[in-house]
Amino acid sequence: MSETATICRSLVLSRRPEGEPRPGDFSLRETPLPEPGEGEVLTRTLLLSVDPYQRRRISGPPSSEPLLALGAVMVGESVGQVLASGDAEFRPGDIVVGSRGWQTHSVSAARQLTKIDTAAAPLGAWLGVLGMPGTTAYSGMRDIGQPQPGETVVVSAAAGAVGSVAGQLAKRAGCRVVGVAGGPDKCMWVQETLGFDDCVDHRSGDFADALGEACPLGIDVYFENVGGIVQEAAFARLNRHARVVMCGMIAQYNEKELPPGPNLGFVVSRRVRIEGMIVADQPERLVEWRALAAPWVRDGSLRHRETLIDGLERAPEALRQVLRGGNFGKMLVRLARAE
Amino acid sequence: MSETATICRSLVLSRRPEGEPRPGDFSLRETPLPEPGEGEVLTRTLLLSVDPYQRRRISGPPSSEPLLALGAVMVGESVGQVLASGDAEFRPGDIVVGSRGWQTHSVSAARQLTKIDTAAAPLGAWLGVLGMPGTTAYSGMRDIGQPQPGETVVVSAAAGAVGSVAGQLAKRAGCRVVGVAGGPDKCMWVQETLGFDDCVDHRSGDFADALGEACPLGIDVYFENVGGIVQEAAFARLNRHARVVMCGMIAQYNEKELPPGPNLGFVVSRRVRIEGMIVADQPERLVEWRALAAPWVRDGSLRHRETLIDGLERAPEALRQVLRGGNFGKMLVRLARAE
Repeated sequence: MSETATICRSLVLSRRPEGEPRPGDFSLRETPLPEPGEGEVLTRTLLLSVDPYQRRRISGPPSSEPLLALGAVMVGESVGQVLASGDAEFRPGDIVVGSRGWQTHSVSAARQLTKIDTAAAPLGAWLGVLGMPGTTAYSGMRDIGQPQPGETVVVSAAAGAVGSVAGQLAKRAGCRVVGVAGGPDKCMWVQETLGFDDCVDHRSGDFADALGEACPLGIDVYFENVGGIVQEAAFARLNRHARVVMCGMIAQYNEKELPPGPNLGFVVSRRVRIEGMIVADQPERLVEWRALAAPWVRDGSLRHRETLIDGLERAPEALRQVLRGGNFGKMLVRLARAE
Repeated sequence: MSETATICRSLVLSRRPEGEPRPGDFSLRETPLPEPGEGEVLTRTLLLSVDPYQRRRISGPPSSEPLLALGAVMVGESVGQVLASGDAEFRPGDIVVGSRGWQTHSVSAARQLTKIDTAAAPLGAWLGVLGMPGTTAYSGMRDIGQPQPGETVVVSAAAGAVGSVAGQLAKRAGCRVVGVAGGPDKCMWVQETLGFDDCVDHRSGDFADALGEACPLGIDVYFENVGGIVQEAAFARLNRHARVVMCGMIAQYNEKELPPGPNLGFVVSRRVRIEGMIVADQPERLVEWRALAAPWVRDGSLRHRETLIDGLERAPEALRQVLRGGNFGKMLVRLARAE
C-alpha cells in the first residue's frame, strides 16, 4: 500500500485547545507526496510518539519553545521507514527516528534523522526507553537527582515513559525507590515488574499518609513529572539536602489558570535544591544513554512497556489519554508496519 | 564597672511570640557571675548580633534547628571581651566572637570562641560584613548564584547585612546588580554608597513593573532574603538557567500560617535552579571569607554599615525592627564598650 501512496496525510493544528485536547482541535490535510531533494530523505511514518510536552506546544503560556502556529503540522518524534533518499547515508527500507510530526509521510533533512538498529530493540523502544523519555530520566537523575546508595527516591508518574526509567535507574544506584502512580494496576506493575520497592496510588484517599509510610526515612530525591497533590505530598517529606528533578507537571498542562504552589520556606530550612530540565538542552545525553541502555534493554534488565493506539486520526485522543494517565509506559500511535 | 560586676544579666525566652516578637516574650534573669573552669573562658558582652533567623528559633515551625526551650537564654552571636580565662589561648582583654547569647556575661568553651583582630576592622564588622551575614552572602553567591560577567543579579533586602554584601560581590563579578529595598533612603544608599546599578523600592505601588524596567534583560541570579511580593516579582522575570539563592524569607517569619507560593511550572520551562542554604553547614566558608574580605573592608572597597541600639533590654525591640526592615546594614545591640 504505502509504496504506491501518492498522498501525504497530516494532522494540522486548527484550533488552540482549552482544557483537554479534542479531535476537533486538529484537522486532516492531504497533500501530494513530496519528493526528496539533495540531502533529503522521504520516509513514511510507522509510529508516532505521544508525549505530555506536546500539550504545551499547542496552547497555554509558551513553555520552553513558542506555541506551534495554527495550520502547522503537529510536532512530535516518530519512527519511519525510508522510501526514497537523496542522501548517501540512507537507503530505502532503513528505519529511522526523528522529529517528523503527525503525518503519514515526511521529507526531512538527512542530518535530522537517526538510523536505528532494529535488531537491538523493538521499534517503539526507540521512542520510549531508548528515546527522548528514557534520556530525560537519565539526564535528570545523572545531572540533578544524583541518587546515592541507601537514599530514598520518589518518582511520580512512575508507570509513565520517563518515570519507569527514572525509578529503575535509582534502583541501579542502590536506593529505596517509591513510585507514585494512578490506580492499582499501574502500582502493581511498577512494583512487581519494574522492581520499585513500593508504589503509592495517588487516587487513594489517604495518599499523602501512604506516601509518608512508604518513605519512613523521608525523601532524598524527588523526580517530579506531575505537580499538584503529588508534589505537595512529596515536598512535605523532603529531607535536608534533598534534590528535586523538575521534569514536568502534567497535572496542570490542560489548565488555563495555574494554581498556586508551595510556600518555599522549606527550601531554605532544609537546604533543598529544586532544578528544572529540558532534555533537548543536552543532545549529547541521547547518544550516551542509547549506548548505556541498549544492552540493558536487550538483556531484559531495563523493563519497558508501550501502549499502542492505531491510526493517525487517533493521535489527538492518544494525547488526551497521556495527559489523563491513560497510558502504561510509552504512548505510541501506529500508522503502518515496517516492510 | 564591668570588672566589678558580680551578676550576669540574661534575657530568657518566657513565651513563644505570636506575630512580632515583643519585650514580654523575654524576661530578665540575674545569676551570679560564673567562674571559668579548665578550658573555659569568662567574657563580658560588648555587642549582640541581631539576625532574622533568630525569630525562627523562638516560635513557628522548627526551621534548621529545633525551637529554643522556654526558660533558655536567647541564642545569638556576639562580640565579647575576656575577663578571666582557663585556657592558654585567651587572656583577659582579648576581644572574641562566638555564639554567646543575649546576656551580659558568658562562660564558653574556649574552642567555641574566635579571637578577632581589632585593628583589621571595627568590632561590629565581625558580626556583620566579616561575620555570619557576610559569609552567608559569600557562600550563597559562590556555591549557588555563581554570577557571570554581564548577567543581571537581583538582591532582595539589599540594604541588609547579607544583601549589601551579596550585591557588592555580584558587582565584583562584573554583573548588572539591582537591589530591592524598603523606602527611598535605603534605595539611595544601596545605589550610591554600595554601588549597585539600580535599586527598586518594594513599598512603591508599581514595584513589579519597576523591577522589570530595572532588569531589561531579565534576571539570571536572584538572591532571596525576603519572600512575598518581592519573590513573586523576581521569579516572574527569571531567565532560562537562572539560579535562585534561597537564603531567607524574612517577610513571613512572623506569620503563623504560611501563604502559598509560586506555581513551579516555570522551573521546568526555564530550567531554573532554586537552592536553599544555611551558612552553618559549611563552617570553613567563614574562615575563607574573612581572609578574602578583611582587606576589602580595610581598603574601603567593601562597604558596610551598622544600626546600633543600646542596652540588653532592647534586644527584643531590635529583633522586631530587623524583621520590619528597620535596620540599615547590620543590626547590633551594644551592651558595653571595650576597655
